[in-house]
Amino acid sequence: MAERSLIFPAQEYRARIVRLQAGMAEQGLDALLLTSPADIYYTTGFLTRFWESPARPWFVVVPHAGDPVAVIPSIGADLMGRSWVRDIRTWDAPDPRDDGVSLLTDTLAQAVAPNGRIGLPMGLETHLRMPLQDFEAVRMRLAPRRFVDATACVQRVREVKSEAEIAKIRATCTIAARAFARVPEFAQAGRPLAEVFRDFQIALLSEGADWVSYVAGGAGRDGYGDVISPAGPGPLQCGDILMLDTGAVKDGYFCDFDRNFAIGPASDTARRAHAALWHATEETLAALRPGMLARDMHRLLSDGLRKHGVTPGDGRLGHGLGITLTEWPSFTPLDDTPLRAGMVLTLEPSCVTSEGQIMVHEENIVLRADGPELLSPRAPEELPEIRT
Amino acid sequence: MAERSLIFPAQEYRARIVRLQAGMAEQGLDALLLTSPADIYYTTGFLTRFWESPARPWFVVVPHAGDPVAVIPSIGADLMGRSWVRDIRTWDAPDPRDDGVSLLTDTLAQAVAPNGRIGLPMGLETHLRMPLQDFEAVRMRLAPRRFVDATACVQRVREVKSEAEIAKIRATCTIAARAFARVPEFAQAGRPLAEVFRDFQIALLSEGADWVSYVAGGAGRDGYGDVISPAGPGPLQCGDILMLDTGAVKDGYFCDFDRNFAIGPASDTARRAHAALWHATEETLAALRPGMLARDMHRLLSDGLRKHGVTPGDGRLGHGLGITLTEWPSFTPLDDTPLRAGMVLTLEPSCVTSEGQIMVHEENIVLRADGPELLSPRAPEELPEIRT
Repeated sequence: MAERSLIFPAQEYRARIVRLQAGMAEQGLDALLLTSPADIYYTTGFLTRFWESPARPWFVVVPHAGDPVAVIPSIGADLMGRSWVRDIRTWDAPDPRDDGVSLLTDTLAQAVAPNGRIGLPMGLETHLRMPLQDFEAVRMRLAPRRFVDATACVQRVREVKSEAEIAKIRATCTIAARAFARVPEFAQAGRPLAEVFRDFQIALLSEGADWVSYVAGGAGRDGYGDVISPAGPGPLQCGDILMLDTGAVKDGYFCDFDRNFAIGPASDTARRAHAALWHATEETLAALRPGMLARDMHRLLSDGLRKHGVTPGDGRLGHGLGITLTEWPSFTPLDDTPLRAGMVLTLEPSCVTSEGQIMVHEENIVLRADGPELLSPRAPEELPEIRT
Repeated sequence: MAERSLIFPAQEYRARIVRLQAGMAEQGLDALLLTSPADIYYTTGFLTRFWESPARPWFVVVPHAGDPVAVIPSIGADLMGRSWVRDIRTWDAPDPRDDGVSLLTDTLAQAVAPNGRIGLPMGLETHLRMPLQDFEAVRMRLAPRRFVDATACVQRVREVKSEAEIAKIRATCTIAARAFARVPEFAQAGRPLAEVFRDFQIALLSEGADWVSYVAGGAGRDGYGDVISPAGPGPLQCGDILMLDTGAVKDGYFCDFDRNFAIGPASDTARRAHAALWHATEETLAALRPGMLARDMHRLLSDGLRKHGVTPGDGRLGHGLGITLTEWPSFTPLDDTPLRAGMVLTLEPSCVTSEGQIMVHEENIVLRADGPELLSPRAPEELPEIRT
């Protein structure tokens, strides 16, 4: 297939590089080294599920000026060649003698003077996707050039989405919403939860997802024990609350929201919890404005939940969203990231319903100058019941 | 759901730890630090798609004797609590002040004397799944304890599968084989390749996959440009060769094989290439024995392809398989890993068919004392035709 792999016109990627380079200049970085699937997709448009194989490292070098350089295994040359990137350097990976170390070192040595600084995301929510030994070899060979943390540089750019990106996330949310609307077709009492998860993934694909990177959920009388477990084989029971949460993907952009369903009549506890989650979200949506901090969102949601008579759950109550299932910032009491127009965020309040049981609720929004715009179609105010 | 999360009885995990500890003793390691989804699943049974979120690091510490310790975000406490691991230490992640650094440092300091050595996979095919800055803080705080490479220690254990693991991989291969059998139902001329990819994923789920972590493929007259691209919107055409490759997952175990289909009558080039790939595979299957090296497989497959009149493709011609889509070793001229009974491997010969076009063929096997046993049902000798 000679299909073009670019999701967006080259101009979109060029604008991203210009914004990154502005941040680099501010921090005095002579180049940026990127190794993660998301950072490489963001800068080049290189989109593949081949990241699933941990065998090979991939690199993009963003110089302080000019276009990025891809330093990649030759198996990716064809696909990267269909991107907007023109300078593509390849080696035959995996090579146990030298798995791109020399090629990457040479590329960085050309881009950065010996007294220069190379930015690398090393902070919260980042990983270095290459063997640590190889990184240490590159670092030693490039000395006296220094590697410095570039987490903030990358995050401040990636966290503000372009209109083209927002449209992609909205499209994925719309696909997921259609799949959620079909849950009553396959989530009846007696059906094993594992089968419900399978059918939900099938619904997501049928409705247009390219792939389904994340499904989690749970079911129980007054909620569920956690929100990250795969499905067990047990059947749904009349009186259960079923929660399904998905990160489906279209064109490399995720949604991340969930929905709750009552299998037959719900308990009063569950109905009250759902109402509290819904109203705390509604009130936070009304209050949210650019200039607030991530931790303000935690406070708004927590206070709202308490006001509506439930105990907030532990952990963060929302986060960023885009080309990974979750992005920074985190709605915790500790995160003082300023919220800016163009950020795509999830509001994800949770509350304790009974000993070891919780319920969660999640919506996706883009923050505009005058407040949030929903990307996920708003959940119903009343917990929907699947009649048995 | 109070479902147990263990895929295997605790005895299976205990046996893995004993084998790891034997390797650690040989190398003089006082503890092993594991951070990757696969290594953590392997040692604990902790299986979740939540790894899709890069927000939080997760750690398992294997001491030189005794049971492993999980040092994890509290969001995972419920699920890890259903595993065989009893010592679970949690913190509220993400925490920008200290995201598990102190808890991990304390755990390792208890397990390892100040003059001790901590093993960490740092070599080929490994990544450190935690922020680099946090690792450097842990390393500094734990000095004079030293971190040393434990790639081989982990690989020599994980690469030999138990019968329970082999049964899981066979089950996933069987699911994929049933999905491949349904390809003629949805891969007709005129259908967009993106739709074919979607239907293939739906077929994999319908046939029993828990999720589909990998689908790639391509289509063209005498083959395809690469084997890692997502589908483009273009339609299948009469005369195309369609290849679909999948890493579906059941109970955390992958298959990884592909199949080729002719959309209407195939060109002579494509039919000859398919025959060469099939026969080179057949002859390699007959020759393969424990004690050979990974590079012998590259030679056997390459020589076979040449003998059958085609030019071998670049890159590796097979690899390990298990709890990630690809595992070591690599069938390249450079990999001298000994092949041992119990290894699960893919044979993946590729050949050049015309300028910039290749065809590939892939089977999954387990190596037994007397040779390979197929896990993927053998592809047909003749390129199957989907009539248009």
